[in-house]
Amino acid sequence: MPPSKESLFLTDLFKLFGTKFPANGDPFLTRCVYDQVHTAAAEVPGCHYESAVVAGRPCLWIYPPEASKKHVVLFFHGGGFSFGSPNGHRKLAAHLAAQCNAISLSLDYRLTPDHPFPAAIEDCIAAYTWLLDNGYSAKNIVFAGDSCGGGLSTTVPLALRERSLPLPGASVSLSPWYDATYSQPSFQSNVGKDFINTLEGCTANADKYVAGGTAKTHPLVSPLFADLQGLNPHWISCAGDDMLRDDGVLLGEKAKAAGVEVVVEVHPDQQHVFEFMAGRAPEADASLKRIGEWVRGKIGS
Amino acid sequence: MPPSKESLFLTDLFKLFGTKFPANGDPFLTRCVYDQVHTAAAEVPGCHYESAVVAGRPCLWIYPPEASKKHVVLFFHGGGFSFGSPNGHRKLAAHLAAQCNAISLSLDYRLTPDHPFPAAIEDCIAAYTWLLDNGYSAKNIVFAGDSCGGGLSTTVPLALRERSLPLPGASVSLSPWYDATYSQPSFQSNVGKDFINTLEGCTANADKYVAGGTAKTHPLVSPLFADLQGLNPHWISCAGDDMLRDDGVLLGEKAKAAGVEVVVEVHPDQQHVFEFMAGRAPEADASLKRIGEWVRGKIGS
Repeated sequence: MPPSKESLFLTDLFKLFGTKFPANGDPFLTRCVYDQVHTAAAEVPGCHYESAVVAGRPCLWIYPPEASKKHVVLFFHGGGFSFGSPNGHRKLAAHLAAQCNAISLSLDYRLTPDHPFPAAIEDCIAAYTWLLDNGYSAKNIVFAGDSCGGGLSTTVPLALRERSLPLPGASVSLSPWYDATYSQPSFQSNVGKDFINTLEGCTANADKYVAGGTAKTHPLVSPLFADLQGLNPHWISCAGDDMLRDDGVLLGEKAKAAGVEVVVEVHPDQQHVFEFMAGRAPEADASLKRIGEWVRGKIGS
Repeated sequence: MPPSKESLFLTDLFKLFGTKFPANGDPFLTRCVYDQVHTAAAEVPGCHYESAVVAGRPCLWIYPPEASKKHVVLFFHGGGFSFGSPNGHRKLAAHLAAQCNAISLSLDYRLTPDHPFPAAIEDCIAAYTWLLDNGYSAKNIVFAGDSCGGGLSTTVPLALRERSLPLPGASVSLSPWYDATYSQPSFQSNVGKDFINTLEGCTANADKYVAGGTAKTHPLVSPLFADLQGLNPHWISCAGDDMLRDDGVLLGEKAKAAGVEVVVEVHPDQQHVFEFMAGRAPEADASLKRIGEWVRGKIGS
């Protein structure tokens, strides 16, 4: 089945971004451009929002109508660890939370180039710890994110495991970035089909993330090289035309081999994080609906 | 009384914008940058939103908690008729609507350079007519906007008067742009105090708006040169350090002389549309609170 007419909006938006990202890589301008990704999604009727500071970082609380207030989607936006924001990803996180019947806390974690690895992971752990300290149960929390935020949905549980902290009930990774060495086949084979990722852009993001001198194969940078035993249940959504497609597919295989409960879906002919089209394209809505059903079963929301 | 510490955020944000607006005037990049003006405001707790298309244009419905659904703030965002959007102005419109105890319809009217005068005015009239055709009473509607959108809050009623259509119950103009010839004293005297408007930027906006060959003194382009008799009640909020300060002050004087009910407030030491700081700075909240009380008296919400 060919992609829906509606889902082609994201292709056009990504092509436009490609012509507008500043040649000098100015972080502020790049962030301004990428925040327009929100235009791919519809508003979630009845959903409301609150600005907050949690564990020292700005956050956006997201309240879908009638969602359980005991269950939380801790959301990590994408943007190569260098751009993206809770505002640009507001509607995506809201649609996902609505399907999960949970509220969401969307975290404005520290970005590169000012804050390389492990700043983002530390901020995620601090927000999660704040939730635990404020009455939320680990089993009622799901980590979710897209792209590098999908990576955080996996690396943060790995970091929690190292510290003997309780893992969240589940993780959802949309088009996750799991390999800062970019050595998986789709990173080459999907060139020309993927309209947001580029060899140069991805490499620049990875270089900024490990600017402190960390190896790109560090398991908390590239969880594809991590020991995955004991990881929490994972749902990994991959897009067929995404240069990062095989990151999710291969991590799913490794996780299964390590005894982790994991679902991997590959959506043919779709762009990186096609769920950005939530409320507008049937493929995005169908993916988020299946994810929501699975999450509700895992965290009891 | 000096400006609050909180209100200085807008000064810094405008200074940043000044360094980031693209030198080539690229409309998309300029729009991306200016949409970040939302970062000055806090979310309105309990407020929800719906994406819609009204009279052929994208719109954002804004529902403050418990607001009257019979009363509508028809909101026109600012941005020199060339940038700005319902999303970038989402929180400003939401705070204003909440104070007015009304829902809001924020209109994504057509912009320059592709759509010069009178495209914006035609879109505003079409959205207003749609409201009238869908059961809303003219007396229960307030027009509101900032900067060029504050201009529309005045020029659209003038255009309605020409067509013998009913005028809305009131208009609210925040730091309005009323004079495309920029011949008022503050346009010179506030250079160096105003960190968002510039001689070059303002002139470029005006040139694009009248690109069809309309005179800059046309009364629907520059209502400062219009016959204001029969205009609906107006609240005009001016910022002391705004290069457009005297646009509002002088239109207020002309309107009073023409027998129009008008309130003009001048807020010392504040930037253009300081109400962008709603939910964060006391000056913004105090201004919107007074506006809301006045509007509720006018439209009965």
